[in-house]
Amino acid sequence: MAERARVSRRSRAEAAGGVRVGELLRVPPGSGPRLADVDTRATPGDPPGKRRARAAVAAVGERLAELQERLYAASTAGDRRRVLLVLQGMDTSGKGGTVKHVVGRFNPAGCRIRSFKAPTDEELRHPFLWRVERALPAPGEIGVFDRSHYEDVLAARVRGLVPEDVWQARYELINDWERQLVEDGVTLVKVFLHLGYEEQRERLLARLDRPDKHWKFSEGDLDDRVLWPEYQRAYEVALRRCSTPWAPWYLVPADRKWYRDWAVAHLLHETLSDLDPRYPPGDLDLDRARARLSAD
Amino acid sequence: MAERARVSRRSRAEAAGGVRVGELLRVPPGSGPRLADVDTRATPGDPPGKRRARAAVAAVGERLAELQERLYAASTAGDRRRVLLVLQGMDTSGKGGTVKHVVGRFNPAGCRIRSFKAPTDEELRHPFLWRVERALPAPGEIGVFDRSHYEDVLAARVRGLVPEDVWQARYELINDWERQLVEDGVTLVKVFLHLGYEEQRERLLARLDRPDKHWKFSEGDLDDRVLWPEYQRAYEVALRRCSTPWAPWYLVPADRKWYRDWAVAHLLHETLSDLDPRYPPGDLDLDRARARLSAD
Repeated sequence: MAERARVSRRSRAEAAGGVRVGELLRVPPGSGPRLADVDTRATPGDPPGKRRARAAVAAVGERLAELQERLYAASTAGDRRRVLLVLQGMDTSGKGGTVKHVVGRFNPAGCRIRSFKAPTDEELRHPFLWRVERALPAPGEIGVFDRSHYEDVLAARVRGLVPEDVWQARYELINDWERQLVEDGVTLVKVFLHLGYEEQRERLLARLDRPDKHWKFSEGDLDDRVLWPEYQRAYEVALRRCSTPWAPWYLVPADRKWYRDWAVAHLLHETLSDLDPRYPPGDLDLDRARARLSAD
Repeated sequence: MAERARVSRRSRAEAAGGVRVGELLRVPPGSGPRLADVDTRATPGDPPGKRRARAAVAAVGERLAELQERLYAASTAGDRRRVLLVLQGMDTSGKGGTVKHVVGRFNPAGCRIRSFKAPTDEELRHPFLWRVERALPAPGEIGVFDRSHYEDVLAARVRGLVPEDVWQARYELINDWERQLVEDGVTLVKVFLHLGYEEQRERLLARLDRPDKHWKFSEGDLDDRVLWPEYQRAYEVALRRCSTPWAPWYLVPADRKWYRDWAVAHLLHETLSDLDPRYPPGDLDLDRARARLSAD
């Protein structure tokens, strides 16, 4: 199964004669990128310019919706496959914008989107994977996590919300859990939106200039910004320890919004194309159905 | 509060100098439309032609997304208001198409969409409102029910799934429950997509001609079609007994897909405009925030 998927993936990429964005952005399992060495303004994958990249997102979006419909249709015949897009990144890195501009291309009926904030009292009373488990997409659906279980090795680690032995143990717990998901038919697309420190400053300042954006702003954002180096370090560890063969991380330079959308749209398109979902044949007696319809 | 809303509604309609689609399509509380007398090909509200109506949906869609963002923003400051679109109609009446083409204009992150099928074993072990209660939108969200608790006085009645005294009692239970929702900040937009018998025949036949639509087809659809008069009667009773001052039904002629989308988009736009959600001011110390951002 895994071998077949790999071959099919290779041949598709070759057939298209193109580069797979996923291959370029994937964090190879076992490797550990130093984030400071990765240019947040880079645009890997040879995208067209800004304007044409936006048009490309619209075009890819139509194919996404078509593939989503096939995935959903297949689920009605017992296919358990589904996709889970996990979005992580510093504040203003564009997680919400990605949902709006890329996920918005899907049929909303088949999307299950969840934004994770600081855990509620009820969530804190359960193991850390409890709240994400409950938000998983059903077979045939596109799931989206805006923040995720990774906050439990990011914010929890940086802000010391739990003792070190607790968060240290979580990397393996996450890997094991994600492997179970994969075995149950979930394809994870874990995206780290890599934003530059200066770009975040610009974006936060821009929010301050717009009264209609003030509701998005809290002093807590600035407290997290003070902890920038610690967060970058925590992301490096999460990418290194949790980019697995079954659920790799993708590192998307995020200073250019148009590139971010272009890259995530292509990641999703490559993922869904690889799944190659098919409309189920159905077990219809066509002649009888036509006769019944024409008779009444 | 209710009085103020009514005045504001009137003045807005007058200010626009236009007709409110909602006024035209609303089923007046206490009245009982005979569905056979309502033309399913009608286009109340003076829409432009098909092509321009589709463009109008796109334009209204942008305003819907803007109003949705305001509604969500307001919820972060404690505003409990939210909208629940309830879609009902015979098979192929376009519930799914409405979600795709109209609801798809919203930011998917703020939508909570649920499609109700035949109740599961677990759902049957609970009171009939249990499963819809769990699918309600949170404050600031746009909720969508593709089918709903009304199936419990439609399919349940027509197919005799429960004894008559049980479904008879449900109309009042529904009205009471919806009133509680309204008092908690939910604005219900209940839409009956009124499809013609001949139009359904055409749509079902068209599905049979397309292998990529066969998965949507089941013999059960034809069994429901045989019960068409009983379903129409059950809809008439539901519209008469459950179009209340606090949660009216809207009757949307649905033979023309472009009109259906145009009408529902305008219903939602009128509803959200009446709510008139505002961005919260936030409690930011702008100068201090700017200083902190510029210093680091």
